[in-house]
Amino acid sequence: MIIVGERLNGQFDDVGRAIQDRDPRVLHELAQKQVDAGADYLDVSVGTAVASRDKADAMAWMVEAIQEATDCPLAIDSPVEAVMQAGLEKAENPPMINSSSAEPEKLKKYIEMAQEHDAALVALTTDKDGVPNDIAKRTELAGNIVMAAMEAGLPFDDLYIDLVALPVSATQQQPGIMIEALRQLQGIADPSPHFIVGLSNVSQSAAKRSLINRTYLVMCMANGLDAAIMDPLDDELMDAMITAELLLNQQIYSDSFLSAYRSSKRRS
Amino acid sequence: MIIVGERLNGQFDDVGRAIQDRDPRVLHELAQKQVDAGADYLDVSVGTAVASRDKADAMAWMVEAIQEATDCPLAIDSPVEAVMQAGLEKAENPPMINSSSAEPEKLKKYIEMAQEHDAALVALTTDKDGVPNDIAKRTELAGNIVMAAMEAGLPFDDLYIDLVALPVSATQQQPGIMIEALRQLQGIADPSPHFIVGLSNVSQSAAKRSLINRTYLVMCMANGLDAAIMDPLDDELMDAMITAELLLNQQIYSDSFLSAYRSSKRRS
Repeated sequence: MIIVGERLNGQFDDVGRAIQDRDPRVLHELAQKQVDAGADYLDVSVGTAVASRDKADAMAWMVEAIQEATDCPLAIDSPVEAVMQAGLEKAENPPMINSSSAEPEKLKKYIEMAQEHDAALVALTTDKDGVPNDIAKRTELAGNIVMAAMEAGLPFDDLYIDLVALPVSATQQQPGIMIEALRQLQGIADPSPHFIVGLSNVSQSAAKRSLINRTYLVMCMANGLDAAIMDPLDDELMDAMITAELLLNQQIYSDSFLSAYRSSKRRS
Repeated sequence: MIIVGERLNGQFDDVGRAIQDRDPRVLHELAQKQVDAGADYLDVSVGTAVASRDKADAMAWMVEAIQEATDCPLAIDSPVEAVMQAGLEKAENPPMINSSSAEPEKLKKYIEMAQEHDAALVALTTDKDGVPNDIAKRTELAGNIVMAAMEAGLPFDDLYIDLVALPVSATQQQPGIMIEALRQLQGIADPSPHFIVGLSNVSQSAAKRSLINRTYLVMCMANGLDAAIMDPLDDELMDAMITAELLLNQQIYSDSFLSAYRSSKRRS
């Protein structure tokens, strides 16, 4: 699994305050902890910590601050192009762009942006109507994303399709629909693009969030998910993920398979 | 999920001693606890508690003893026909036969036995060569089982196909192969037969058994598994199972979805 650590997001109180105060210490600590726990990318989002007009500045500051602590690649996370650009310009290692929609013009522009910055691209199966309710529309939009990447020459290894996890507490049929769409999209191209999920969405406003997150993660992994924006500091979530990798023959079994995974990640 | 409680098995020390001493109290307690925790069937196995020649007697005694505590249907579990018959003859409610192989003659005989006792039948995708290593042979044997049931007129709702979970510690590619076979068999017939797993096998001789069991269970559920022989007294396993049902839209969400499930099971 490719893990994109979700904690450097202004939606979290500690990060929000750090952004407002331009205090890099919280960012340094959360960056280092997530990398130690196994993050392959660190998601960076201003969230709602500052007013819209200040978001590009805040993003640039966050990227610089985080890079003082780690050289882990960053996933620049913003729906606003100017904020995205501000982050990309400061990124020292090839970053991830999080995210484009599947709308043709936006997709075309974001694929170009990815190529310009040698970046990976997350593309959501959403269009002007938002997140489709049904399986067919989600797979159709995923197909459009794959075609657009192919036409532009973006390598599939740099493409992350996000089928969009919706909260089980609000729309109970949606998590299963996403799994079914994921299943149907296996084999869509060879080599395959990645399939990613913004995991914590599934448990938004729900009780037992960690339990819901880790259960959904392994259900998705059993249907081809190979990347997630998630909290690597949630030990039970990481245990479940490592165990699912073991059961899918992606990790070698030993009695200490959990700690073996963690040691290998810390050394790297 | 249809839960077959696994704890009434002579392989467990407490049950083995109870069988040898003909002491029904342990059986009463384990039966009641498993039913309270949500078991739909109680698996009954003599295991290796007594010598082969005494197994039929021990099975008859176990079935009678358990039925003093509960009217939950039983899954009579033995590879030996005489032991199976001894259990079936004492069973008061329509039981489950656990299990036949996919060998044509054995399957034919066990389907007849199921029909005679109004029983459900577990059929393993094994033949004279044991458990197939590959996906194609497993799905072929599953197809043979479905055909045999159809020809004999056994309703698919009474048929439980067991694709055989093998220990991840010994044969690491096997758990993933079973998931893939499960996925390929969805839609094999309409209405579908059930798909069942002897869950604890996957973690045999492994560390972190409960973690491996619950992770594998939800991975299988996300690919069509709808029954398991498992330990309903493992609370974390049950939490994971209930959460997977929620995410597959088989349980209604509420903030107390875990306790709501458990209350509904206790009342039934």
